[in-house]
Amino acid sequence: MFTFFYYPGTCALASHIALEDAGASYELKRLDFRKTEQQSPDYLAINPKGRVPTLRTPRGVLTETPAILAFLAQSFPEARLAPLDDPFAFAQLQAFTNHLCSTVHVAHAHGRRGYRWAAEEASFADMKRKVPESVGACFELIETRMFKGPWAMGEDYSIADPYLFTLATWLEGDGVDPARFPRVAEHRARMADRASVKRAIEQEMAA
Amino acid sequence: MFTFFYYPGTCALASHIALEDAGASYELKRLDFRKTEQQSPDYLAINPKGRVPTLRTPRGVLTETPAILAFLAQSFPEARLAPLDDPFAFAQLQAFTNHLCSTVHVAHAHGRRGYRWAAEEASFADMKRKVPESVGACFELIETRMFKGPWAMGEDYSIADPYLFTLATWLEGDGVDPARFPRVAEHRARMADRASVKRAIEQEMAA
Repeated sequence: MFTFFYYPGTCALASHIALEDAGASYELKRLDFRKTEQQSPDYLAINPKGRVPTLRTPRGVLTETPAILAFLAQSFPEARLAPLDDPFAFAQLQAFTNHLCSTVHVAHAHGRRGYRWAAEEASFADMKRKVPESVGACFELIETRMFKGPWAMGEDYSIADPYLFTLATWLEGDGVDPARFPRVAEHRARMADRASVKRAIEQEMAA
Repeated sequence: MFTFFYYPGTCALASHIALEDAGASYELKRLDFRKTEQQSPDYLAINPKGRVPTLRTPRGVLTETPAILAFLAQSFPEARLAPLDDPFAFAQLQAFTNHLCSTVHVAHAHGRRGYRWAAEEASFADMKRKVPESVGACFELIETRMFKGPWAMGEDYSIADPYLFTLATWLEGDGVDPARFPRVAEHRARMADRASVKRAIEQEMAA
């Protein structure tokens, strides 16, 4: 049994969907970001980064979306969420999830968490203005060079799909028109129809 | 035979050391960042991100340091660079390398590549001033909560070690005193003495 710490609207949704895809047994723990519960001493004792997602397992705690996603794929091989027997294909998949975390999510974060990297309000405003361009460029690359179709990595659904879906749900909020990226937009709509995605979103909204 | 694209002083050093650790056959291709060769049409045809590292393999191109590192560990199991038969331990290792790429490297990058996330010179200067604090906080977390010792993940050397080493070589340039982090500093000195690290650095300096 896992415990999964999340907050709605965050990248934790990607791992939450993957938990559903894997058929894992887990309980949800919602942190209230409005009360900064992710910085509470109790939570920092679990995850000293003070962020989500966190997956608590019988063997210890895991953080970082790409690491959690790969862990779920390897721990539930029957769910076929990654090409586990092919190091090159697995690395291509990991390059995709790593790009989402280190470049796409980071570009997005500058719209609301500029204080991580600067101190002045004017800088935060400047960063916020840049987000449509930087996030737009990220999705341009995904649309034209990275997304294989019908799923992110090609014929087979994988852990890259819930992660791409999660970040794609932020496009409008980042001032980027999803219609610029028809393949990503079609993928997002198709993902939203999947049972695992619906369950994860319903659970997050109901809590 | 692999081809490895790099530039000295970048995070590509981590994968370069891992290539040496793995005993892989590879040829080096140095991109001249002073001439912006990483943005040349020839290189963008190989890696549309226009960054390093890139590992060209007989099956295609791989990017993103954590993905390349895990690929090398899985492709050269006899080098024992990761706990390949233990998904939880492998995920802990991946959480470490992912944190380096998505948080530590990103904090560092604000000192010189602010144009990725803002437009004004004043914002770039603000970001640059913040680097000692943000990078310092990253290494504080590594020193006190993440680094297990004697290697990053504990008793066994792994792909996390060349990556941590590479980012730790940037501390002085980021205005952070390595003496604040005695375990990381001792690890850095010990890494610098390893034959694989010496070979990789000598090759990068000689080119």
